Amino acid sequence: MKKINLSEKLSLINDHWNPRIVGELNGQYLKLVKFKGPFTWHHHETEDEMFLVVKGRFRMEFREANDNSSAPGEQKEVWLEPGEFMVVPHGVEHRPVADEEAEVLLFEPASTLNTGNVRDEFTVPKLDWI
Amino acid sequence: MKKINLSEKLSLINDHWNPRIVGELNGQYLKLVKFKGPFTWHHHETEDEMFLVVKGRFRMEFREANDNSSAPGEQKEVWLEPGEFMVVPHGVEHRPVADEEAEVLLFEPASTLNTGNVRDEFTVPKLDWI
Repeated sequence: MKKINLSEKLSLINDHWNPRIVGELNGQYLKLVKFKGPFTWHHHETEDEMFLVVKGRFRMEFREANDNSSAPGEQKEVWLEPGEFMVVPHGVEHRPVADEEAEVLLFEPASTLNTGNVRDEFTVPKLDWI
Repeated sequence: MKKINLSEKLSLINDHWNPRIVGELNGQYLKLVKFKGPFTWHHHETEDEMFLVVKGRFRMEFREANDNSSAPGEQKEVWLEPGEFMVVPHGVEHRPVADEEAEVLLFEPASTLNTGNVRDEFTVPKLDWI
């Protein structure tokens, strides 16, 4: 039974958009990842994803309306700061964008592919444990 | 699509050992709770639990050996500091103890009862959302 220190694990990550697994429970993974720049627009057919900012900040962009005041199809964004999280439900088109490097804890099913329905240069089919 | 600020939600909690739900994904809940003092010894038959310290510190005590150097049945403990988490697998007898108040984020299945196999004065059968 070991504890995991988020900062220690994050210090082992020297690239961007390449999530590493740091914990597993109930068929879900806890992952750490560093964001920088814009990611790929994508969605996940069946998996909800949680993003918790450990350090830095980023914005989550959405192509779909996320409240009643939005016109359908209007792009929206939510800025996430350290100590803030959001859940992106399955089916929702999204992309994280980090103007500066952001360090993020993810909680999502073990089956989740980082680019969801898309395969491109950001896709990491098999994640490493750190 | 809304973000959740952990500190804001924690400021709404004025009691101990009473987890509140702050997020849901894939049949799992994200919960916030304040620990103070010793909790009840218990285990969960089927659910793994994750504990991430947001503020303060606490120790997780175990009745079972947690490494090869331990004699079977020896009690062990792991101290958790802010930015550190651990996963307690199902079946493992444990109790959190906080000498001073600790603020903790939990990830666990929606079905998880806080006292697991035990029903006592700490049991909270139905959790509130905040």
